Amino acid sequence: MTPTIAVGDVLKRAREMTEPRLAEALERLPASIQRAASYHIGWTEADGQPRHQRGGKFVRAALAILSAEATWADAEVGLPGAVAVELVHNFSLLHDDLMDGDLERRHRPTVWALWGPSLALLAGDALATLSVQVLLGTGSPEAPAAASALSRATAEMIAGQADDLAFEQRRNVSVEECMGMSTAKTGALLGCAASIGAVLAGAPPATARALEGFGRHLGVAFQAVDDLLGIWGDPATTGKPAGNDIRQRKKSMPIVAALAAGDDESRELDALLFGEDVKGSAGEAVAGDGSKSNGHVVSKAGMPGIELATPEWAPAQLRPLSADEVARAASLVERCGGREWTAARAKAHLDAALGSLERARLSALPRRALADLAVYVVERES
Amino acid sequence: MTPTIAVGDVLKRAREMTEPRLAEALERLPASIQRAASYHIGWTEADGQPRHQRGGKFVRAALAILSAEATWADAEVGLPGAVAVELVHNFSLLHDDLMDGDLERRHRPTVWALWGPSLALLAGDALATLSVQVLLGTGSPEAPAAASALSRATAEMIAGQADDLAFEQRRNVSVEECMGMSTAKTGALLGCAASIGAVLAGAPPATARALEGFGRHLGVAFQAVDDLLGIWGDPATTGKPAGNDIRQRKKSMPIVAALAAGDDESRELDALLFGEDVKGSAGEAVAGDGSKSNGHVVSKAGMPGIELATPEWAPAQLRPLSADEVARAASLVERCGGREWTAARAKAHLDAALGSLERARLSALPRRALADLAVYVVERES
Repeated sequence: MTPTIAVGDVLKRAREMTEPRLAEALERLPASIQRAASYHIGWTEADGQPRHQRGGKFVRAALAILSAEATWADAEVGLPGAVAVELVHNFSLLHDDLMDGDLERRHRPTVWALWGPSLALLAGDALATLSVQVLLGTGSPEAPAAASALSRATAEMIAGQADDLAFEQRRNVSVEECMGMSTAKTGALLGCAASIGAVLAGAPPATARALEGFGRHLGVAFQAVDDLLGIWGDPATTGKPAGNDIRQRKKSMPIVAALAAGDDESRELDALLFGEDVKGSAGEAVAGDGSKSNGHVVSKAGMPGIELATPEWAPAQLRPLSADEVARAASLVERCGGREWTAARAKAHLDAALGSLERARLSALPRRALADLAVYVVERES
Repeated sequence: MTPTIAVGDVLKRAREMTEPRLAEALERLPASIQRAASYHIGWTEADGQPRHQRGGKFVRAALAILSAEATWADAEVGLPGAVAVELVHNFSLLHDDLMDGDLERRHRPTVWALWGPSLALLAGDALATLSVQVLLGTGSPEAPAAASALSRATAEMIAGQADDLAFEQRRNVSVEECMGMSTAKTGALLGCAASIGAVLAGAPPATARALEGFGRHLGVAFQAVDDLLGIWGDPATTGKPAGNDIRQRKKSMPIVAALAAGDDESRELDALLFGEDVKGSAGEAVAGDGSKSNGHVVSKAGMPGIELATPEWAPAQLRPLSADEVARAASLVERCGGREWTAARAKAHLDAALGSLERARLSALPRRALADLAVYVVERES
């Protein structure tokens, strides 16, 4: 039997290895972007002072490092991959916060809320570009393959975000579409993180593919748990209001699954979230102050030909739901089976991830560490 | 004497070679982003119908293709570089329009104005990522070096944009800072465009460096002309209101040079653009409706700790200038020598570009085509 490895130690080592290299990479950036990135990652306060409690979990970095070791290479071989995937991850968070108009992340103001949308946008652009430079800058013969894999994963992640955005404008999204979007949005980058060390180590393609499959399934399981927390998570832990995804009418797994149930309660949920007038599809335009709404998801920003004086991030101009309505919707999602279905998805994809790991030819200890890390990530407070 | 080559034909060939490969690359993107990118480049209308008058000048593509031929390689060798630099160029335009809050580009609504900020942001992200995929996807042994060079140029361009943004928050910007920003913002990508074909052709580093120097100087000359057009350009041609850069109080070359003159008229210009109270630096906060202003450049978005309900793209909340004030400021810029100085910069950097080209060991006909293209780009309506 392979001995258990403490996940806390695995993450701590990943942080200790990755942070100095990440900080070194950030030094190439202009001061304004460096300050924003360092604040965003959780190293500094808004005024540039170091934080007592440094942030960042470095799960992706740990996957990258372990994936090198799993193919009998040194941890250091996976390190440029660890830095690069953390850069892409943080790029996506910076742009996501901006698109979602989120004022806070992990109980702190977001970068755009502090320094304006333009700096958040440029900081994201800079981190994405830096990720390619970090990989290609190693000069390793495997670096181009790793950079290719990372670009492919980044492209898939962006496509997933574009789907997410498109779904906001639609009343009906199928369960398959929702799962495809989650795989692209979250699975692609975790799949890359879990295999980039193997790519950098020059491991056989079949091994890298198995590790990528492990990471992709892990990403979907992770997203399923995230979607559960988005409705039933403790606000003190998530840093978001209770029932946040319901408030924002997100097409998350539990909600989409519940809407697909097709019974009376599912129809009540649909009417509660998106308005009574089920047959209509065009909808009435909504006053800018949000005071007038027939409940349709119609965004001015989505209507070609209209000139906006100021960009508008809120995807839908629907009437805000009351606390009672949020609670009722959450209860309906549960009664329609959305909670149970999503929890089952989390379990199934975690099992698939572990299966993919089991079938690959890998070094025993890092394989065990990858498995333990996967279980830890999926089981956090769910 | 080397025969003249018709610049129109050079650009036409670049377009004919690049468009199909660019379109093929865009097919990898999700439908919503593909539609936005195709509209932005100028191939389609907002409803997806093909345009009669297709847009896009493909100057960067022409530079990339010619730089391969200048090092005795076939035009096709430079083509992936041409596609990649056009992708990065369009990524930067999509994000610039969003940051500047510009509603129109080339007399058509911008992507964010049509489809919302989120799609414009994601489309930019997607094109930037695709540029790396296009280069590394060729599998050519020179592709990693080309991708490295492009990432370096992209990073420098983003740093230049960050400087541009930081300068908006400052009252005083030196002429040196302004030129450094222009070199980064515009010179870096043109430098990459003018050398990436040589890199892909495996040309000697000294040759690629000389071509890069040519492109960088060309970029600064181009930016100088653009800055002149930003004040004195014909609105019918530029698609922007007369004196647009003065209206927006941009720290462009003519304005910065005029402010640096240090005489009475320069001080009048400073007071006209940025308010009477020259000694103050903190300034008074400005009401959200812009009705209250003491003339200081103070952005709510630039003040840490303030939570914004909606992102705010306008960098400065200054009182809009009247048409008379814009005309007076343009006249002051000219009287302080800002126009003449900028025109001299355009000429000096064009000369430096041509000098760099002349000194390199290059094939005669493409060298001549590069020189003619440079003169054409800088002399457009200036």
